Amino acid sequence: MHLDEIKQALLESYRSDGGINHLDGANLPSQASVNQLAADCMHLLFPGYFEESVLTERALPAHVTQLLAKIDQRLTAEIEKCLRFAQVPKPTAEARERSTAVLSQLPALRKLIQTDVVAAYQGDPAARSVEEIIVAYPCVLVISLQRLAHVLYHLGVPLLPRMLTEFGHERTGCDIHPGARLGSHFFIDHCTGVVIGETATVGAHVKLYQGVTLGAKSFETDPDGNPVKGVKRHPDIGDNVTIYAHATILGGDTSIGARSIVGSNVWLLKSIPADSVALFKGDSVVVRSRRKHEALVGHSAAGPLPESSPGEWQI
Amino acid sequence: MHLDEIKQALLESYRSDGGINHLDGANLPSQASVNQLAADCMHLLFPGYFEESVLTERALPAHVTQLLAKIDQRLTAEIEKCLRFAQVPKPTAEARERSTAVLSQLPALRKLIQTDVVAAYQGDPAARSVEEIIVAYPCVLVISLQRLAHVLYHLGVPLLPRMLTEFGHERTGCDIHPGARLGSHFFIDHCTGVVIGETATVGAHVKLYQGVTLGAKSFETDPDGNPVKGVKRHPDIGDNVTIYAHATILGGDTSIGARSIVGSNVWLLKSIPADSVALFKGDSVVVRSRRKHEALVGHSAAGPLPESSPGEWQI
Amino acid sequence: MHLDEIKQALLESYRSDGGINHLDGANLPSQASVNQLAADCMHLLFPGYFEESVLTERALPAHVTQLLAKIDQRLTAEIEKCLRFAQVPKPTAEARERSTAVLSQLPALRKLIQTDVVAAYQGDPAARSVEEIIVAYPCVLVISLQRLAHVLYHLGVPLLPRMLTEFGHERTGCDIHPGARLGSHFFIDHCTGVVIGETATVGAHVKLYQGVTLGAKSFETDPDGNPVKGVKRHPDIGDNVTIYAHATILGGDTSIGARSIVGSNVWLLKSIPADSVALFKGDSVVVRSRRKHEALVGHSAAGPLPESSPGEWQI
Repeated sequence: MHLDEIKQALLESYRSDGGINHLDGANLPSQASVNQLAADCMHLLFPGYFEESVLTERALPAHVTQLLAKIDQRLTAEIEKCLRFAQVPKPTAEARERSTAVLSQLPALRKLIQTDVVAAYQGDPAARSVEEIIVAYPCVLVISLQRLAHVLYHLGVPLLPRMLTEFGHERTGCDIHPGARLGSHFFIDHCTGVVIGETATVGAHVKLYQGVTLGAKSFETDPDGNPVKGVKRHPDIGDNVTIYAHATILGGDTSIGARSIVGSNVWLLKSIPADSVALFKGDSVVVRSRRKHEALVGHSAAGPLPESSPGEWQI
Repeated sequence: MHLDEIKQALLESYRSDGGINHLDGANLPSQASVNQLAADCMHLLFPGYFEESVLTERALPAHVTQLLAKIDQRLTAEIEKCLRFAQVPKPTAEARERSTAVLSQLPALRKLIQTDVVAAYQGDPAARSVEEIIVAYPCVLVISLQRLAHVLYHLGVPLLPRMLTEFGHERTGCDIHPGARLGSHFFIDHCTGVVIGETATVGAHVKLYQGVTLGAKSFETDPDGNPVKGVKRHPDIGDNVTIYAHATILGGDTSIGARSIVGSNVWLLKSIPADSVALFKGDSVVVRSRRKHEALVGHSAAGPLPESSPGEWQI
Repeated sequence: MHLDEIKQALLESYRSDGGINHLDGANLPSQASVNQLAADCMHLLFPGYFEESVLTERALPAHVTQLLAKIDQRLTAEIEKCLRFAQVPKPTAEARERSTAVLSQLPALRKLIQTDVVAAYQGDPAARSVEEIIVAYPCVLVISLQRLAHVLYHLGVPLLPRMLTEFGHERTGCDIHPGARLGSHFFIDHCTGVVIGETATVGAHVKLYQGVTLGAKSFETDPDGNPVKGVKRHPDIGDNVTIYAHATILGGDTSIGARSIVGSNVWLLKSIPADSVALFKGDSVVVRSRRKHEALVGHSAAGPLPESSPGEWQI
């Protein structure tokens, strides 16, 4: 078989096996362009951190003007592609408007993202400075990009939000859907393997470790066998909750009460009340009040949980 | 110590600590070149998806001719390096032949990969369009490259297949060995942490979640303490099987029967029959027929599994 | 809202929300520069492996001279930034000295890293050659960079060591803190999801699988709520220990005795003696002597562990 025959066979397969190639339709955002957009936004959110040379107070206004214009141009272009793809009327004007709407959120996002940086510094004994968090902790990239993608998601822009969070997922191993609602002071240590679903909500001052899943149970499918979209499928995590490594919490009606602690490897399909501790007892999960638990084990339950003891109640 | 002394010490270590440097031998494929090859193949498999500008039906033939020639040239060169490294006779002619053999498989691979895209769309309620799957789901990259690497693996090309799958592993956190045999309609959600071993087989319409391992038990070693290569070490997964997050299935004589479901965190070292459900009961894995299970829990076992109940049988 | 207003709001937020921007202070190492440094060091450690063209014995001295000078220049510059940031006196002279100190360790590091390559070849039946390990196994990159970062860590250089290990973490999903002490012949199979904390120690001939955590229990906080830094928080792993996928070992006073085996998914908060086997029995971890275990199961415990049997003792 020669290259020319292979070419003909490929062209034929583009015709016959439609559905995975996208021609003469609206052009889609290119990954290279989305990657550049993500990098530029990180520079704008953390001025002076990722530049090759010193960025002075004096040079800052010109720097911001230039960077903002560059981001606006690219963001508008990529949003327009997404809107054309979704056949939204007046895509050009709409894209300009939504790009401005996103950028106008940046100062508020910075305020929020700063709380994540503080939470990381306070949450990890290995961190020696706030600067170390920003230049070397994966949670900063993945949470910042999700917060940005979340704004796009709520503006009804298709494709682009998920491409932005996937940029973060690829670099950190942490997959947070753009739809997830994240509170302030959010820290994810190590990041690798964490999955947070589209309809999950996470309160303020929540701390997750590697491998935690906030996922879905079963889902409904329509007569064509396609899943029904947009149903609440993922859990709600209260304020000040800590979830240790590889815990799995599933279901749209599952909620973790405020100030509760979920132990390493715990697998939860049901809600637990505020101020409780869930730990793994193998054939089931055991839950007790945090006060009772700390009395039993004789110290604060800030760390992974010891083996359980009599008197606890099952869920 | 000055740089010159350090240089001398390094040159001396290249001589004395041989085995990790590769000089004057066959040159090995460069990672940069393999990365470019992987990217070009994705462009050829999904025309119009990853281009910066619109790709028209009209421009397609010229585009394919050019891209195919570029890929053939690079693929032939890298295969030749691998064959020289393995001291295969007539490496130049052999490389040309095997490169053509790989490229002639591309139309068939496209057909297969399209089934994976459909499976992802049908398998994830969060997916809003087939296009979103292709531009933003890591499973598309990692499965497509493994299917390509699998062709090279069967042509007896060393090094290159593993370098291609490692390109996918680095970007997705999903490590599928080139030797694994994957059926059609294969969906891996989230991808991070999934490991599929060299001698594993996966049926059609199989769905995996993050952190699933299809791995090996112990292996034999030869008198020099090196493992014996090429033994069947990894499990066989039947058609229409679903395996939830962080399940671990080990062993070359372990098979999961068709239409079975393996629950989150289950750890399996033994086979289970068709139409069964395996769930984690802590001190052992419990298996029951799917019909019985669904009668017990009162709903389809499409989601993660509830706690077990009496009457089930142990494996 | 126009771009100019957004710019003003951003400039205002840079002033008001201080703490996440870094201006007119010491410039920090740029990620791009650290990435180049990591790549250049891999080239120097593995000459002839990652070059585009053949590297001959004859061309080697000139190649090393040039590469070493390039690395020294960049390393000195980045170290100086870190020392200025930490307000170390005489940062320029100090940086020059510490860069030389790091580079003078390279020959010794090569010797050590070669033992890791051998361990990977002997530890994985799927590996067909030592060359395949170096060009396609993620453990080589992440362990080599951690060994390099560990030298910088002990020279008291802030920021840079963690940036180097994060480069490896981003590419492999394996997060090894620069402070961790790693023995020779260290093999991590698949790498994804592995976390090794700052104060962990790992003996010689240790083998880890994907998803293993060597982590911390609870930690002390000071009156401001910031964690107390520098306390021993992570476990000690003895020589010739094997730890299977997704096992979690926590605590600074937890030690795993030499030649012991920790089974898949085991969750350990307490020490186990030498020559023992720890396996998961759901509501607790069961430990027995390796001799007893192998008598019970009738074969070497080189693979994942079968279900337990009576007569073992609890920890």
